[in-house]
Amino acid sequence: MTTPTFSSIEKWILQRIHATIGRPPIRLALGRGPELLPAGIEPLASVLISDWRTLARLAFNPEIGFGDGYSEGCIEVEGDLVLLMETVLRCMKDAETKGWYPAFVSRWLERVQANTLNGSARNIHHHYDLTADFYKLWLDPQLVYTCAYFPTPSATLEQAQLAKMDYICQKLHLRSGEKIVEAGCGWGALALHMAKNYRVTVRAFNISREQILFARERAKREGLTHQVEFIEDDYRNISGHSDVFISVGMLEHVGAEHYNPLGHIIHRTIGDSGRGLLHFIGRNQESPFSPWIRKRIFPGAYVPTLGQVMDIFEPWDFSVQDVENLRYHYAKTLEHWLSRFESSVNSISRMFGAEFVRAWRLYLAGSIAAFRVGRLQLFQILFAGSNCQRVPWTRNYLYGDQQSLSKESRWTHAMS
Amino acid sequence: MTTPTFSSIEKWILQRIHATIGRPPIRLALGRGPELLPAGIEPLASVLISDWRTLARLAFNPEIGFGDGYSEGCIEVEGDLVLLMETVLRCMKDAETKGWYPAFVSRWLERVQANTLNGSARNIHHHYDLTADFYKLWLDPQLVYTCAYFPTPSATLEQAQLAKMDYICQKLHLRSGEKIVEAGCGWGALALHMAKNYRVTVRAFNISREQILFARERAKREGLTHQVEFIEDDYRNISGHSDVFISVGMLEHVGAEHYNPLGHIIHRTIGDSGRGLLHFIGRNQESPFSPWIRKRIFPGAYVPTLGQVMDIFEPWDFSVQDVENLRYHYAKTLEHWLSRFESSVNSISRMFGAEFVRAWRLYLAGSIAAFRVGRLQLFQILFAGSNCQRVPWTRNYLYGDQQSLSKESRWTHAMS
Repeated sequence: MTTPTFSSIEKWILQRIHATIGRPPIRLALGRGPELLPAGIEPLASVLISDWRTLARLAFNPEIGFGDGYSEGCIEVEGDLVLLMETVLRCMKDAETKGWYPAFVSRWLERVQANTLNGSARNIHHHYDLTADFYKLWLDPQLVYTCAYFPTPSATLEQAQLAKMDYICQKLHLRSGEKIVEAGCGWGALALHMAKNYRVTVRAFNISREQILFARERAKREGLTHQVEFIEDDYRNISGHSDVFISVGMLEHVGAEHYNPLGHIIHRTIGDSGRGLLHFIGRNQESPFSPWIRKRIFPGAYVPTLGQVMDIFEPWDFSVQDVENLRYHYAKTLEHWLSRFESSVNSISRMFGAEFVRAWRLYLAGSIAAFRVGRLQLFQILFAGSNCQRVPWTRNYLYGDQQSLSKESRWTHAMS
Repeated sequence: MTTPTFSSIEKWILQRIHATIGRPPIRLALGRGPELLPAGIEPLASVLISDWRTLARLAFNPEIGFGDGYSEGCIEVEGDLVLLMETVLRCMKDAETKGWYPAFVSRWLERVQANTLNGSARNIHHHYDLTADFYKLWLDPQLVYTCAYFPTPSATLEQAQLAKMDYICQKLHLRSGEKIVEAGCGWGALALHMAKNYRVTVRAFNISREQILFARERAKREGLTHQVEFIEDDYRNISGHSDVFISVGMLEHVGAEHYNPLGHIIHRTIGDSGRGLLHFIGRNQESPFSPWIRKRIFPGAYVPTLGQVMDIFEPWDFSVQDVENLRYHYAKTLEHWLSRFESSVNSISRMFGAEFVRAWRLYLAGSIAAFRVGRLQLFQILFAGSNCQRVPWTRNYLYGDQQSLSKESRWTHAMS
């Protein structure tokens, strides 16, 4: 019997990590020491772990260990980062919940990042109050920070964000003069788009101070302050009546335990006769959201299933009209973002440092991978109050030749 | 103090019934005795109760009391039956679950009509094994007994049933040579339509013997027996692999407790790479299905919410692609059915007697009302396995000019 050498322990740990993530065709190597090369196949990428400490963190909590290790530069990836992430995600279904330590960290994050009024303010501040100058470097010129809608895959990001905003307005068939509430309005692009192109009035809520100030400035510049009011407040404080409730990319920050109260707020706002649209990242199966993303990128975030989201609608007799899954559009949107991000790496590094750049690169690349493999989905849900009179007869009005549709064939209530 | 007269007790009961159903603008009258005329408004219709016994049944269990009383001719309606039902449904939200006695009857029905293998056979036999000659009198010539899709509200029922079958095939973008499983195939119209127009092979399951024999006969007549196999068996016994799983109008007979096993059967059939479509009557809120309909028309039926139906998809990582709500199309479909039914009342009465005619008239009229007011919804859910490569890029292919869509812009996986 031989005493195990230091190197053979390291190799054993590498093997254990490789098994935990589902044995992907990826080469793992520790510094200049041992390496693990899956037998019989050409590895798609290599993960180079610089030291023992990083190896140990990986062994204890693969996801946070990898995210932090990569951000800090203690893990290097040779090969395509997106492909690596995609490969690992395909091999490692639900690995994030495995093991007592990752589960403990995941639950601990849930507690310290809980979306109370103050907690949400802190969580949102962490991400969205990074200066707009940063987001300008890699988002489209209108700063739309949600999944775009690409009429064809070769559309530009600018076209696709515009198409997305218009698609939402058309799904809701907005009419001149209607009152809209938007919950979570980002830098204001959609609110201003609706006001300008559909002549509606909008009250747009957001708890990111930076974003609200930016949006107000833009409304002033575009002469839309009489139509759009940007309100720095939590969705829980929305009051007053409106015809339409829209929320694009906010639900991820609400938390499943707040869906029932959110439904109450929506019902208070649009009653039984209004209508609404929620656009959000979802998933096929209940599972805690990526702990590393929550720790470093989006504190307090939670990604629900369609079933969970029904808690918003069912208690108030809201009728779900239309659900569309646009996950491939989010993968494409993120590809554009990552590519622009990479073009601005020097500027971003000067703003926030190299570790920030690496963390955000991983977040963007990992998100592309997650949407591609179906770990994440993107749902648009169109819904209506139980007494809503504005329900389209078919979906032709969204796609077909709109001029050719007579009034009779467009609305369900034209007939009665 | 005056002693209450017989007539004032009757009047008090009429008032109680009227309050229970939400005080609709409906006149209630007991024989030639007392009547209740809602003050200050012109009643939309009158309900004439012939005797004390019927009044008592109404008081104890308004829904079953009304349904049975109407069927037996002990209740007459003056005015439009659909309008009456619509008015009452609007006034009486969730009244069916009120009171211990209706709740008891509802639960008792659940038990005796449970959808075990034998129970389902009995339940389906009750409704669908009525001779096809009966259904030929009021369905479209192809005998499609599910919600149609009216490209415009003025389309004929024949056009709309054809459009529905084609819409389903297009949503699933069937390809020549693919293998389809259909669970609950009625008289076989959709299975034969797919085989004929999309050159697929279909295994179609049904436990209604009458329907299967009819469908086999039709397949023989149309020379499609090499492409379509009609199998007299329960969906729980579906085996073998296929590319696509379709079920139109069967879920209502499955029961919520069987959704998880149904998901397992679907996954066993199409795996992670297949796709499917479920078309079913749903509702906005959980609630027992109409006890009278269960007692007299559809034993064992249950109408789920979208949230409940997610039990089919979530455990198997199925990805919901598209949900469409077609409830106004079902109201319109039922209007056609009812109108044809009324034209054939004499023949139907000769076949099954007057009580049957009245019960089915009430079922059809009540269903129109339920879809109009939103008590019932009609959902089409398109879903895909977690590894499905055949996901459309947008929905344009369903509505727009199909020729103009290049391959690149049609499929998500054309890009990768």
